[in-house]
Amino acid sequence: MDALINDIEIIKAKTTKINDVDFDNLTFGKILTDHMLECDFKDGKWQAPKVVPYQPITLDPSAKIFHYGQSVFEGMKAYKDADGTVWLFRPLDNFKRLNISSKRLAIPELPEDYFMNGLKALLKVDSDWIPRNEGSSLYIRPFIFASGKGFHASPADEYKFIIACAPSGSYFSGEVKVLIEEKYSRSANGGVGFAKAGGNYAGQFYPTQLAVDKGYQQVIWTDDNTHEYIEEAGAMNIFVRINDTLITGPTSDRILDGITRKSIIELAQSKGIPVEVRKITVSEVVEAAKNGSLKEMFGAGTAAVISPISGFGYKNEDYDIPEMEDAYASFLKKHITDIQTNKSEDPFGWRYKVE
Amino acid sequence: MDALINDIEIIKAKTTKINDVDFDNLTFGKILTDHMLECDFKDGKWQAPKVVPYQPITLDPSAKIFHYGQSVFEGMKAYKDADGTVWLFRPLDNFKRLNISSKRLAIPELPEDYFMNGLKALLKVDSDWIPRNEGSSLYIRPFIFASGKGFHASPADEYKFIIACAPSGSYFSGEVKVLIEEKYSRSANGGVGFAKAGGNYAGQFYPTQLAVDKGYQQVIWTDDNTHEYIEEAGAMNIFVRINDTLITGPTSDRILDGITRKSIIELAQSKGIPVEVRKITVSEVVEAAKNGSLKEMFGAGTAAVISPISGFGYKNEDYDIPEMEDAYASFLKKHITDIQTNKSEDPFGWRYKVE
Repeated sequence: MDALINDIEIIKAKTTKINDVDFDNLTFGKILTDHMLECDFKDGKWQAPKVVPYQPITLDPSAKIFHYGQSVFEGMKAYKDADGTVWLFRPLDNFKRLNISSKRLAIPELPEDYFMNGLKALLKVDSDWIPRNEGSSLYIRPFIFASGKGFHASPADEYKFIIACAPSGSYFSGEVKVLIEEKYSRSANGGVGFAKAGGNYAGQFYPTQLAVDKGYQQVIWTDDNTHEYIEEAGAMNIFVRINDTLITGPTSDRILDGITRKSIIELAQSKGIPVEVRKITVSEVVEAAKNGSLKEMFGAGTAAVISPISGFGYKNEDYDIPEMEDAYASFLKKHITDIQTNKSEDPFGWRYKVE
Repeated sequence: MDALINDIEIIKAKTTKINDVDFDNLTFGKILTDHMLECDFKDGKWQAPKVVPYQPITLDPSAKIFHYGQSVFEGMKAYKDADGTVWLFRPLDNFKRLNISSKRLAIPELPEDYFMNGLKALLKVDSDWIPRNEGSSLYIRPFIFASGKGFHASPADEYKFIIACAPSGSYFSGEVKVLIEEKYSRSANGGVGFAKAGGNYAGQFYPTQLAVDKGYQQVIWTDDNTHEYIEEAGAMNIFVRINDTLITGPTSDRILDGITRKSIIELAQSKGIPVEVRKITVSEVVEAAKNGSLKEMFGAGTAAVISPISGFGYKNEDYDIPEMEDAYASFLKKHITDIQTNKSEDPFGWRYKVE
């Protein structure tokens, strides 16, 4: 044992990879830091987490993660301000959602102190990895998967909770055009769409690839029964602005309760922007695009924060959404990132100081 | 390199675990054989498979299997007859379905000879592990998962295909009662329900646990939109017998195209049993249970072959399905297992000799 931080045992890496990293040209989620948090569920309970050197995971080939997709994750970011203070954004909401996801996937829920103290200890050990560059941050990936063995299709008896971190630049490069999906679906009523479950993402890759082949970057998912309602964009929630009103769909058992999504709703309302949380039909969006009242469309999520959409395809027609001055997307993104990076006041109490 | 079998490189284990195995008291899928087939997708193609000692898999924590559920699998069985000859059951159908699943999960498709020659080489090396006991078999688990790295939510650039084997007894012990699901769902229209994707299974664990807590063993999944149609039972397709007619639902993008299911349909028809492949409503099953015309209900799948259901719950009522003489379930199960184990003629050409 090298040290204890927040009651978390720290085993330090003998060398660092940080000198090989070009912090001015970061991509997303490819370069991992020197350490990770590791915590095992066995003998019926979560064991004490440890910060250990970032290292490979060794699993039996019959580990249930390989066969039955029992895994959940979160996405978070840490920022370093001009004074070198480290900030998180609503981390307890990520913790709570992780347990909501776990429950639906029959994974044992995690104690809050293991998550929060473990995360803070890891961020202290890898503090030098948190970028200060505009537009960059330390992307944090907490995840849990079934490490228990056996081919019986039932919940595992052992799990691993890991937090790994990757200094990252922007998620999307260039413009984002989306295809409104008419055939494939992301989630079912009564399914796991509201959870950050691994399987929700793999199922999107093939339809997304078909959309990419047609010249789009992302799919806008619609309900699986009628394909008449707009639900979610791949790894993001979706907002549309019709005239001056900002609209997003309500959360449901098919739609992720996004932390960026709910922050945008609250922030926009506080700035006097009219916000509606209600079902959005594809036909109203198409109609608004035709008559010029569709002013903006953007995705919202931790990875991309706010990602403006420059056009969409539907039933073999393309609709442009011309860039506008005073767009809500850039206004809201600036406000949120200023709060996240401690450049502005935080009237909502969203910012969380790591100390 | 120790040897070549069917052009497959063999690296033999230095020791065997077989002497520790009680072949008279096998459970399902817990004891693994001495070897496994291993095949990597990298540099844009599947590399030559090898038979290697059964051993742990080492992965980077950012491997996409942990985050995005990109995995598919198959279930097969090998049998040894009285002469010691080894038999598979319709293995090419498993191979084809594996590639159908892979395509939907954006996993590169596998060449047929890597699958078939690799499987046969593995079965020769671990031939002593194939049980001869009545009701036991070698359960074979081919699976593919994303081993490529990175947190970007997109298909991996590297994969592992593995075949592992477990000498196994029966999947269920004791009677099977099922709960017809009214709230949760297994799959969406346009989703991945027809694929043997890992994520399809993890999503069933929590609702199944709720059913187990109420005294049932499995959930009967209904459509996610109305919950009025019977679709699938957990890891099995579902059949009902009303009067003398055997009925099963049609396959769709929500329902797995089960190999045992289609074998039962063909076998039953050849034996003069009236078979209907059509949508089954929950209300007709409840009505048939009430008026006594529901004679049988059973699950069908590789693991359980045919698993008779002794009753079901629906809307807080329980319905018994009394055991009957001359049940289709036992008649069909005997015929199928006799074909599988080379105890009878095989007019369908389903049996596949491993040589």
